[in-house]
Amino acid sequence: MAVRVGVLGATGAVGQRLIQLLDPHPDFEIAALTASESSAGKSYREAAKWRVDSPIPEDVADITVTATDPDEVPNDVDLLFSSLPSSVGARVEPPFCEEGYVVSSNSSNSRMADDVPLVIPEVNADHLDLLEVQRDERGWDGALVKNPNCSTITFVPTLAALTQFGLEKVHVATLQAVSGAGYDGVTSMEIIDNAIPHIGSEEDKLETESRKLLGAFDGAEVDHHEMAVAASCNRIATLDGHLENVWVEAEEELTPDAAAEAMREYPSLDLRSSPDPLIHVFDEPDRPQPRLDRTLGDGMAVSAGGFRESTFGLQYNCLSHNTIRGAAGASVLNGELLVENGYL
Amino acid sequence: MAVRVGVLGATGAVGQRLIQLLDPHPDFEIAALTASESSAGKSYREAAKWRVDSPIPEDVADITVTATDPDEVPNDVDLLFSSLPSSVGARVEPPFCEEGYVVSSNSSNSRMADDVPLVIPEVNADHLDLLEVQRDERGWDGALVKNPNCSTITFVPTLAALTQFGLEKVHVATLQAVSGAGYDGVTSMEIIDNAIPHIGSEEDKLETESRKLLGAFDGAEVDHHEMAVAASCNRIATLDGHLENVWVEAEEELTPDAAAEAMREYPSLDLRSSPDPLIHVFDEPDRPQPRLDRTLGDGMAVSAGGFRESTFGLQYNCLSHNTIRGAAGASVLNGELLVENGYL
Amino acid sequence: MAVRVGVLGATGAVGQRLIQLLDPHPDFEIAALTASESSAGKSYREAAKWRVDSPIPEDVADITVTATDPDEVPNDVDLLFSSLPSSVGARVEPPFCEEGYVVSSNSSNSRMADDVPLVIPEVNADHLDLLEVQRDERGWDGALVKNPNCSTITFVPTLAALTQFGLEKVHVATLQAVSGAGYDGVTSMEIIDNAIPHIGSEEDKLETESRKLLGAFDGAEVDHHEMAVAASCNRIATLDGHLENVWVEAEEELTPDAAAEAMREYPSLDLRSSPDPLIHVFDEPDRPQPRLDRTLGDGMAVSAGGFRESTFGLQYNCLSHNTIRGAAGASVLNGELLVENGYL
Amino acid sequence: MAVRVGVLGATGAVGQRLIQLLDPHPDFEIAALTASESSAGKSYREAAKWRVDSPIPEDVADITVTATDPDEVPNDVDLLFSSLPSSVGARVEPPFCEEGYVVSSNSSNSRMADDVPLVIPEVNADHLDLLEVQRDERGWDGALVKNPNCSTITFVPTLAALTQFGLEKVHVATLQAVSGAGYDGVTSMEIIDNAIPHIGSEEDKLETESRKLLGAFDGAEVDHHEMAVAASCNRIATLDGHLENVWVEAEEELTPDAAAEAMREYPSLDLRSSPDPLIHVFDEPDRPQPRLDRTLGDGMAVSAGGFRESTFGLQYNCLSHNTIRGAAGASVLNGELLVENGYL
Repeated sequence: MAVRVGVLGATGAVGQRLIQLLDPHPDFEIAALTASESSAGKSYREAAKWRVDSPIPEDVADITVTATDPDEVPNDVDLLFSSLPSSVGARVEPPFCEEGYVVSSNSSNSRMADDVPLVIPEVNADHLDLLEVQRDERGWDGALVKNPNCSTITFVPTLAALTQFGLEKVHVATLQAVSGAGYDGVTSMEIIDNAIPHIGSEEDKLETESRKLLGAFDGAEVDHHEMAVAASCNRIATLDGHLENVWVEAEEELTPDAAAEAMREYPSLDLRSSPDPLIHVFDEPDRPQPRLDRTLGDGMAVSAGGFRESTFGLQYNCLSHNTIRGAAGASVLNGELLVENGYL
Repeated sequence: MAVRVGVLGATGAVGQRLIQLLDPHPDFEIAALTASESSAGKSYREAAKWRVDSPIPEDVADITVTATDPDEVPNDVDLLFSSLPSSVGARVEPPFCEEGYVVSSNSSNSRMADDVPLVIPEVNADHLDLLEVQRDERGWDGALVKNPNCSTITFVPTLAALTQFGLEKVHVATLQAVSGAGYDGVTSMEIIDNAIPHIGSEEDKLETESRKLLGAFDGAEVDHHEMAVAASCNRIATLDGHLENVWVEAEEELTPDAAAEAMREYPSLDLRSSPDPLIHVFDEPDRPQPRLDRTLGDGMAVSAGGFRESTFGLQYNCLSHNTIRGAAGASVLNGELLVENGYL
Repeated sequence: MAVRVGVLGATGAVGQRLIQLLDPHPDFEIAALTASESSAGKSYREAAKWRVDSPIPEDVADITVTATDPDEVPNDVDLLFSSLPSSVGARVEPPFCEEGYVVSSNSSNSRMADDVPLVIPEVNADHLDLLEVQRDERGWDGALVKNPNCSTITFVPTLAALTQFGLEKVHVATLQAVSGAGYDGVTSMEIIDNAIPHIGSEEDKLETESRKLLGAFDGAEVDHHEMAVAASCNRIATLDGHLENVWVEAEEELTPDAAAEAMREYPSLDLRSSPDPLIHVFDEPDRPQPRLDRTLGDGMAVSAGGFRESTFGLQYNCLSHNTIRGAAGASVLNGELLVENGYL
Repeated sequence: MAVRVGVLGATGAVGQRLIQLLDPHPDFEIAALTASESSAGKSYREAAKWRVDSPIPEDVADITVTATDPDEVPNDVDLLFSSLPSSVGARVEPPFCEEGYVVSSNSSNSRMADDVPLVIPEVNADHLDLLEVQRDERGWDGALVKNPNCSTITFVPTLAALTQFGLEKVHVATLQAVSGAGYDGVTSMEIIDNAIPHIGSEEDKLETESRKLLGAFDGAEVDHHEMAVAASCNRIATLDGHLENVWVEAEEELTPDAAAEAMREYPSLDLRSSPDPLIHVFDEPDRPQPRLDRTLGDGMAVSAGGFRESTFGLQYNCLSHNTIRGAAGASVLNGELLVENGYL
């Protein structure tokens, strides 16, 4: 029987991707859509300017959008997917959790809070039990789980495959797609025949979220990984797919072949949205490429290639689809994990 | 009185840029143009498919193109600018030098040879005297001087401003324009909505040429700089302008402010094509950007910005116009230095 | 039981699309692949530089490529799909037909020949019987059927829906995708931040092929439609999907609503690759758009919108996927029609 | 002695282009800059987010921006250049004219008003004297002159060269650059790998403004040209430069050669911003192209090419720089004409 779910912030770019993924999902049934006050009372068809690359699902189109308020969402909805601006998320997610809703959130607020699990299921599913601590401390019947930023999700699975070598230093340069900034985030005048070597506060997310994700959870708290990460972020004229150049220095010998092998063998999970393989490893030196490889595993796979010995340690490149694996799909996958682990 | 000059490989992309720069140059007069056998005997207008963003100079258009052979170039031409495929350059440049021509070359062959000066005038003009060694060893009346690869030229001037801090480790990720691959080098199907994380043998050029350029010349040989450089190269959908993300670790304290200041104060030269300032420093965190900043200093300036303290040392971004400062303009500037220093 | 088919010119851009469509096709089984002499003897994996947006089919990858010669193709292959340069097609297609092979060709040679059916099944399936005339005249056991040029296919189905109004004059301006020129046809330097108002001999194809397609076949010959067509063609920076602006002047009153209605009601066919609806009609004035609408009907639908009364008659816009509906899919669909009508 | 001028709407995209053109202009001196209330009191440097491709002029950067109100602009400013949203222009331009200011406006309001001259100096400078009628009717000491829409300016000069052949019918399809929609007008998600076949109310501007521009002025009113024009407008992924495909049917024989010749001979004017030649005619069939040809005549020339006999009359293509010749430069040129003709 399908779990009744809702989407907070359903009209935005990631909200639309969430609906695209949830509508055909056999385990979930969309039962509530929220947006800003100005959209409340309208049909979803009217409220959303639908821009995703498949037609708007007809049954969802007729749902009446409500305000993003616990009083407006039916009680028989158990699981909420949240993709709100972080300032809004910070304000409205806690009341939902207090009212008993379980929230799988893509919003950046609270990701680094000590009692909020930041989860990529294939990497650190065990962190989910931090929810016990969260419920204890906050007195919530509901729960709040976060997925990381899209640029973080791209390289962390590849690093997870390499932790066995003793990660010490990581440099990462990103070439990020315009969709990561939202539908109206980057104007055409800014990006045609151009690149922008700055994305506000993005470097910090890569540097800190990655260490929490790869940290050890002892049942009480997450001990962040001791590796040091330095990031530099660029926006380029691609629609979807974040490409990243990574350098890794490890305690133990880490050859290109050993790295590729470790990523090839890195396990997937038995969750519906978890692709197999999780990491698609290329032998060709010029792959992965955003347009060619972003839809691998229905947009949920990470890909890696270009492994070579660098002046300092190992160098390789990786890629993922930033609005599927990096945002909407990440939240859906966390939702599947929440169901699997009995948190609903 | 203008020096009579010739262009070897005049019909190619960089060859056309050379003509665009040399035609209005008050110190040079174009007197010879060479290309492949199939173009020999044609007017330059016929032989070149002119694609530069200014009309073909009328007087140059009527010059008859010859084969790239010392016997075909008039003896009263003293200085040759060469922009040939490296395999061709390796074959034909030495005979020209043997015949007494001075060659300022952009071709990649011989750049790392011990007795060939690799020069960016504002960085290591003193290396030019390696030509004495070259003439001694090779018995040439002429001379061969090289400028580095376009991606190398972009970051080396910024590093030159920082050598006083004791450079130890440098990581550099490049976002390179399609023109760097030549007019037909990158197809539209490859690059629209895409990026390619691989440019054959480019990383090696950045890593080795930079150390030669910043090395010390003692009158007999160049002692390459001891810093270690790791590069990762990407092709993106920009027309001109290579953007680079740089991380620097130095022996001494190197703050963002000190780095910006050192670059601002880094001197230009009193050569016609040397811009003042050499390095344009931006305070805005999102600059330099390829389309906005590549034409600073008529395409001969380097720009830098985004200075910040990174997890490891300093991080900043830099940019230059790859076919002007990075290729044709670099060769012309070396030609000016050769004249200034009496090598003709 | 599946028909055994071959692909002539299997390594090219359209050849790869053909394999992408034929491999999963339940009615066809790929049994032969041909290419130029230099590829003969290699596995398809080696011979083709696979660039389509899905992985190379494993079973096809191991097929040994032969030269494009009737002696090299097994006799038990009945149907050949041809996507050769027109000069090659003109030379090699007739010998195949003489040897008894039925050829469904996308190559532009012979499209306007009196005894060669030029067919879009949903528009003029009845023209296929021109093959009787062809076999009579040429003494072939095989047969040669052509699909039109990609830009022709885009607007002809929409005109077919309007013939009832008495078409008199048609103006069409095209905005064509780079893939239409083949993988290496348009360089990035040509098209980034640019458009090219010229595609060699393309206007003529739109103007003449459209009149043949809409002509009447009386069992002996095709009487070309008497409408007059004027075309102007542009290349723009889109990957796939030709967009066209059309003005139509008709004998009878032709309102925007009547035109939209006629297109909505225009019938599809009961062939596997014929989409339903054939023409997707948009109410939004700014649709169709290449990236959003090219994959409608798995790339086999035509879309139309922006219907409005113009200073002269009706104005609307239409679009189709140029390498699927406009090339590979068009040939496959003609292959289905050949099977259905008993020509194998 | 330089005329003191002001810019209404100085912070917008066209406002910035106006400043870029006016600052070095020897006949004009920038003495006032206005913008919305929220910018009033700030320095221009603070108020404008400068995005033009040359640095902000230092002396202009320090001017204090005022509200767009006649009381805020110094009385010794005689000439105002206006580039306001049309609704704002409709509200504020008349009070300025009433207060005695002469306004050269790029805003679309009032362009088709009977007593407002719509002028391209090289085409219909004589229409300027409609200002006598305007002053009579409105009792203004000042005056209001308009330049047409950017897409109109592109093709009208080429039509003006052909009026001698008796223009009857014109079809025009446009491929317009993103800058025409303002800096934030087109998002990157809308236009990368895409084209949009609709620009609100643009077709109407081409169809009506062209007939007014080519009309005859008898000293009292403008008799619009009797030709009929049908336009279809598209937005494509170019930064600057509107490209247009034009079909012309004329009363008299109009060959491609005669058309090219007429355009080559069409006269320029003796005004500082009027380029010579006005129309740059290409022999190459694939020119003009936006990126290659938009800066001809410092962005003030129109270019044309691809002349051929079409199924219906003549077909050719034309191009101009939409924010220079098509907007800011057009207003400046009208300002020069106003000075020349003694309207200040």
